[in-house]
Formats: sequence, structure tokens, C-alpha cells
Amino acid sequence: MRVTPEAKGTIHAVGLGPGAPDLMSVRADRLVRETQHIAYFRKVGRPGQARSIVDGMLRPDAQELPMEYPITTEIPVADPLYRKTLAAFYAAGATQLRALSEQGHDIAVLCEGDPMFFGSFMHLFTRLSGAAPIRIVPGIAGMAGATAAAGLPLVWGDDTLAVLAGTMPWEKLAERIRQADALVVMKCGRHLTKVRQALSEAGRLADAWLIEYATMPGERVQPLSQHNGSPAPYFSLIVVPGRGRRS
Amino acid sequence: MRVTPEAKGTIHAVGLGPGAPDLMSVRADRLVRETQHIAYFRKVGRPGQARSIVDGMLRPDAQELPMEYPITTEIPVADPLYRKTLAAFYAAGATQLRALSEQGHDIAVLCEGDPMFFGSFMHLFTRLSGAAPIRIVPGIAGMAGATAAAGLPLVWGDDTLAVLAGTMPWEKLAERIRQADALVVMKCGRHLTKVRQALSEAGRLADAWLIEYATMPGERVQPLSQHNGSPAPYFSLIVVPGRGRRS
Repeated sequence: MRVTPEAKGTIHAVGLGPGAPDLMSVRADRLVRETQHIAYFRKVGRPGQARSIVDGMLRPDAQELPMEYPITTEIPVADPLYRKTLAAFYAAGATQLRALSEQGHDIAVLCEGDPMFFGSFMHLFTRLSGAAPIRIVPGIAGMAGATAAAGLPLVWGDDTLAVLAGTMPWEKLAERIRQADALVVMKCGRHLTKVRQALSEAGRLADAWLIEYATMPGERVQPLSQHNGSPAPYFSLIVVPGRGRRS
Repeated sequence: MRVTPEAKGTIHAVGLGPGAPDLMSVRADRLVRETQHIAYFRKVGRPGQARSIVDGMLRPDAQELPMEYPITTEIPVADPLYRKTLAAFYAAGATQLRALSEQGHDIAVLCEGDPMFFGSFMHLFTRLSGAAPIRIVPGIAGMAGATAAAGLPLVWGDDTLAVLAGTMPWEKLAERIRQADALVVMKCGRHLTKVRQALSEAGRLADAWLIEYATMPGERVQPLSQHNGSPAPYFSLIVVPGRGRRS
């Protein structure tokens, strides 16, 4: 029997914001509490950050669908097997969500931060787009949580903002840092020393802040210049405020 | 009599998100409904976008403090009088909020989008920081509302994102567009033709989307290449998605 489009359930990609549960939107809060089918990504053996944020909010009869990342730490990123393994994983997740949708179930896919901003959901989105009804519920990005926690106005007037990944190659990272007015560097982790060096060479180290666990327990704000150089936790980023026209 | 810090009221800068009232955070929603003193910016003779978003949410005994931008359209931005006029305006607003705080009143300052991202509140923040207790409630940025509305994953893997103002000089705008992976161009307005030309020269016009009134009534998503060239409304921005590593 062919299912009519009207009978399909909607896949809601729900942005949960930076971590504090009351920083999810009213719409997200409602969807998390009301939707029976709750999907989320997590590492094997971990509760998962997205799932942790909604602790205590789910329906008693909620059906949970954890999508567990395949273990890829032993495969180099450049190895075709790395991409192939992840592609198969995302394809399986998309198939699972699509099947639920075709059975008429709505699904809330929990997304840390904003779903369209470095989110794993994007890999499902490209596979499901056109095949199932999808609604994106935007969320507060981690960098907004960080600038709020640190009290750092980020961009003023004609400032340009560059959002960079600390995983970038040195040359490109250094060049982008030299050019930008305001900067956010994500994914620093083990790359913190490299990022710090690039900021220092560009003369921006004195204005750089390291913010860890913004809006979460363990929140910590410190000048990057005073950091001891140990790897940064996953939930951390560097902010260098802009210097644009001010009144 | 000297007021102890404990007796001071807190100034909450409340990010309201991109426009749809249910896209403000649960925390923002609560502060808007519970706080008696509600401040916001607006143009003379206009209701103000921030105030419009919270329509119907305020306490019956709310005290509203509209801060009305001085009329500066006749003063060139480069004229020192422009900056002086705005500086006096922000100083007066800060004085007003500080006085309320010292009387022990909490205040919610309504901020469109995120308070620290191109927000007028930043001009109050620099004047009030240290003088009054301030809490920033981050909000969903307009660009997240736009990527959600358009179904455009913005940044992937090692992508760099550049957020630019359409008001930038041509040379700098064109250079930044050539370098970035993902792009958001704000403040296009009367600069739409210039931005379009720069995107075209960089070979990115085919991937560029113009999103107007994201998450609001009148929401409209269209390829920039199909736009007729008329000025864009204030609530519009251009998104060019990144092309990073995908699985």
C-alpha cells in the first residue's frame, strides 16, 4: 500500500542550545516533552551530551533511538575507509528515521547547539531531504553561550566574524586569524597550542579568551594567555571579540 | 545611604531569538513574563521588533522603558556628530538602567537575536559592566533562523564561516567572499546589488540564498540569482553553505 505524504510523520531536528536545559527554545522544550520517538547521536558507552540535556523531560512512554557513532579512532581521517564507515552509519540512521516517518510517527532528533551549525544531523538531512517531512528547530549556538558566559560582545558595526576549526592546517589558520576582526575558534582540543601560537603571531593573544563548558556545570572563563597548555575539553572554544565602530 | 551590592537589581539582557516567539529560550520566556521592568530599543514612532515579539507576554503591571534611537539619518556616519549623538543616547539609557538597578529593581532588556551578536545592548553593556549586576541570556541568532527556514546546513567538518556586513567596502567584501567556505552576509539592504556582484565574481552566486523574515510572518527563501535586485528588507540575510568534508 502506498503511504500518502499526509500520513507521514515529521522529523524534527531539535536544537537544544549550548547545554543549560532552560536555554533550549520554548518550541524545542515542547517537542522534547511531547514527542514519543526521541533519536540522538552518542558515542558507544556514553550517555551522550544531547540526551543528558533532556534528562527528566521525556514522556514516560518515550521510545529512544540512540545512534551510536562507529568507532573510527583507529582509522585515519584521510583513509577512504573512514568516510565509508561513517557514510554507512549515517545511511542506516536515515533509513531508521525514514521508516518511522512512513509509519506515521513524529520523531524528535536531539541536536546540541544549532542543528545546521557543525551538527551531525546535517548528514541525515542530506539523505532524508525530499523523502520525509523535516522541520528544523534552530538552537542557540555554543559560541553564543560562550560570549554570554564570558560577557564578551562579539561583533560590532562592520566587524567581520570568522568561525574557524582548530583542526585546520597551520597556514590557513594563521592567515584567517590575521584577517578577521572577531574570531571564534572551535574544535581546539589537542590543537590548543597551535591556535595559541597563531593568535600570538597575529597580535591577538591578549584579547583571546578560552571558555570551557559554557552555561554548563564546570563553566570556566579564562584569558587564553594564562592557560597552561593542556588539551582543551570538547566543550570549549576560543573567542576574540571584534573591535568595530562603537558609540 | 550607600546601597550594598546585594541590594542591587540585576540587568538581564534577554536574547529573544530570530522572531518567532516560541524560539526564545525557556529562560528568556520566563524572564519576559516575570520581570516588571522591561526595556527595549526602538525607532521613534515604531513599536519596535523586540517589543513586538513579546506581545501579550508582559505582566499586567509591567513598566516599559522604550529607548528610542535618536534620529541620525541626516548625519553622515563619518561625521563626529553621529558618534557623539549615539554615545549620548547610550549613556542616557545606561544611566536609566543603572538607577533602576540601584533602587533594587530587576530589569529585562529585550534583545533581538543574541545580545552579544551585533546587538545594541553591547553599547549599554560596556557602560554598565562593573557598575551593575548583568546577566546575559543568549539567544538564537538570525542566521540560525535563516538556515533552519531554508534547510541549509551551514558548516561542515573543517569549513570556515565568515559573517560579513553588506555595508563593507567593496574590496574587503570581495576578498572575504573569495576566501570563505561558508558565508553569511548581513545588513544587505541597499547593498544587495554590490553583494550579489561580489558573490558572482567569486563563483558563489549559484549557491547563494536570500532569506527574508526567517521564522516570521512573511518568511521567504529564494535563490539570490533569481532576486529582482530591489533593496532587501532589514530582516534578511544571504547564506552560502559550506562545502566541507561530508560523509
